[in-house]
This record gives sequence, C-alpha cells and structure tokens, in this order.
Amino acid sequence: MAMAKGAGVLPLVRRPMDLLFVVFFVTHIPTSLLVDGQCALPSEYFPQKATELLAFHLETFKDPLMGTCPGWLQLIIWCELLLQVPFFFAATYAFVRGSKWIRIPAIVYGTHTSTTLMPILGAFWLSNGQKEYPGYNLSFEDKAKLTLLYIPYLIMPFLLVVKMVAREDPFKRYRAGGAKKAKKK
Amino acid sequence: MAMAKGAGVLPLVRRPMDLLFVVFFVTHIPTSLLVDGQCALPSEYFPQKATELLAFHLETFKDPLMGTCPGWLQLIIWCELLLQVPFFFAATYAFVRGSKWIRIPAIVYGTHTSTTLMPILGAFWLSNGQKEYPGYNLSFEDKAKLTLLYIPYLIMPFLLVVKMVAREDPFKRYRAGGAKKAKKK
Repeated sequence: MAMAKGAGVLPLVRRPMDLLFVVFFVTHIPTSLLVDGQCALPSEYFPQKATELLAFHLETFKDPLMGTCPGWLQLIIWCELLLQVPFFFAATYAFVRGSKWIRIPAIVYGTHTSTTLMPILGAFWLSNGQKEYPGYNLSFEDKAKLTLLYIPYLIMPFLLVVKMVAREDPFKRYRAGGAKKAKKK
Repeated sequence: MAMAKGAGVLPLVRRPMDLLFVVFFVTHIPTSLLVDGQCALPSEYFPQKATELLAFHLETFKDPLMGTCPGWLQLIIWCELLLQVPFFFAATYAFVRGSKWIRIPAIVYGTHTSTTLMPILGAFWLSNGQKEYPGYNLSFEDKAKLTLLYIPYLIMPFLLVVKMVAREDPFKRYRAGGAKKAKKK
C-alpha cells in the first residue's frame, strides 16, 4: 500500500507551504458553505450559529457586501459553492498525495478566485459609497480592515497560481526526497 | 527565415477556430481602450467618436453597468486595461506563430475573463434593479439583450481555456501539417 502510485511524497507536515495551502482549503469549506452561502440562499437554510456568525461579522466589519448581497456578488458566491468547494476537496486530496494532476485545476481555481477579489476590493475602494451601498459610509479605517480581512483570498490563490505555473510537476522535489527516504529503509 | 523557430505552422486563415480567437483578441483591443476604459478614466481622455459610441451603447442597451460604472466594475476594467490588453497582443503573435508558450497565459486570461462575467451577469439577473442601479428598471427583454451582448466575453475565453487545457501543445497538429507542406516544396 505504501508503494501505491502517488505514495513516497514527503509528509504534508514537512512541507510548510503545502500545509498552509491545505489549511486554507479545509478551513474555506465551512466558511463558504455556512457563511458566504448566506448571500446566495435564504437564511433559514443555515444553522443558527452560522447566521449569528454572519451577524457578528457584519457588526464588527460594517461589510457592505455581505450586508447587502448585491446581484453581482451573488453569482460569485454561487461559483464559490459550486466550483470552489469541490475544488477544495480535490485539492486537499491532491496536496496530501502530491498528485500533479491538480496543476491545471489549481491554476484555474487560483485565477478565478484572485479575479473575484477585484470587484470586491473595487467595491470597497472605488465605490461611490453612500450611493452604491446606502447606509454604509465607510471610513478609511473601515476599508483597511475589510481589505485585511479579504486579502488572504487574493494572496493565497495568487501564490497557488505562482506555485503551479512555476513547475510542470509541482510536487516533484518533495517526491524525490520522499523516494530517497523510502530507499534508506 | 521561413524555417525559423515557430515557422512551419499552418497559416492562420486555414485554422478557422484560431482565426476566430485572433479576430476576438484584435477587435477587443480598441473596445477595451476606447470604450470600456471610459469607466476607469475621465471621458476627456477619449476621442469624441469613442464617447459617442458609448453614449449610443447606453441609449440602445440601457446598460446599468457602463451607465453607472460602480466601484466593483472599475477594478475589473483596470484589469482589462493592464492585463487583458497586453495579453491580446501577445496572444495574437503566439496564435499566428503557433507558439505553445501561450498555453498557461491563455488559461489564466480565459479563466480571469470568464470570471469577470460572473459579477456582470449577476448584476443583470440577480440585482434588486431599482435599488442597486437607480433609474434602470430592466425588463426581461432588456436583460436578455444585454446578456447576448456580453456573453461572447464569457464564451470565447471559456473556449480558449478548453482548447488550452485539452492539449499540452495546442498548435501541434497544425504544425505537423505545416511541416509536411514545407517538405513537399
């Protein structure tokens, strides 16, 4: 079993950047399904804890996007539920196993998600605030806080694209090391 | 010269789908710079013909997005000017020459651009129209017209991703044919 195809890769805990990606994928699943999903589906579909968490987020960050769920954001969130969430499962599996077939899906996911941050950051910084999001008059500090909250969803997918574009087999160096270790036994 | 690296590919006119992509890239350059750009930069930067063309578009299609230039759209248009336009030049060159280095950039471009159509179509179909875009009360027919106008910018980039994902060397079959022809001489 240990010699099965895809085995022999360095354990995930010894690949810090890959571990960080997997933590990002895994933690993103409940965030997408339980929090972000509330902008796409009626709130009665969600557990009370999840609606409370969103309420806390809205109160803390004065987020005009999750607070008003504009039409443009709703279709982005549908993509998150229907495309990103399945990717997180596949990517977690592929990263643990060191499977290079994840390369092109990861480039597509990373580009897609980085791109969705453009309208989000544009809404924070370039909107005619009061007019576009009535009731939300964001100060510079509010915008900066929201940006810090959202920016990991630009940085991590972007770094994923960089990792995947850089090498045809993104896990090769870890597999080589793993193979050497296996031979030592 | 005819034997230079990258030569020997079938002429573009004999590759109908590639020709269609190149027509899409080339015609997109003035559209981006002269029309879409008016949502990112002040209108005095643009020739009168271009502002007239946008005015005609707004009158014909009742486009709430180009008509109000919301913050979320502005950053998408900045990406169009700074990322897509350079890609169109590179891609035109690469498609004419049959250069496979365009593969990953084309996947990134295609995914990016398809993604930008999500907020655009979401704004047309899922918005609380009157509230989000005051003055624009779009009928079903208006939304359908706008969708038909914008949908090529989802379909063409998506087809490009499909073409580029499908084969590691997307022009190989045209190069082989070209090579055979060259030998016949």
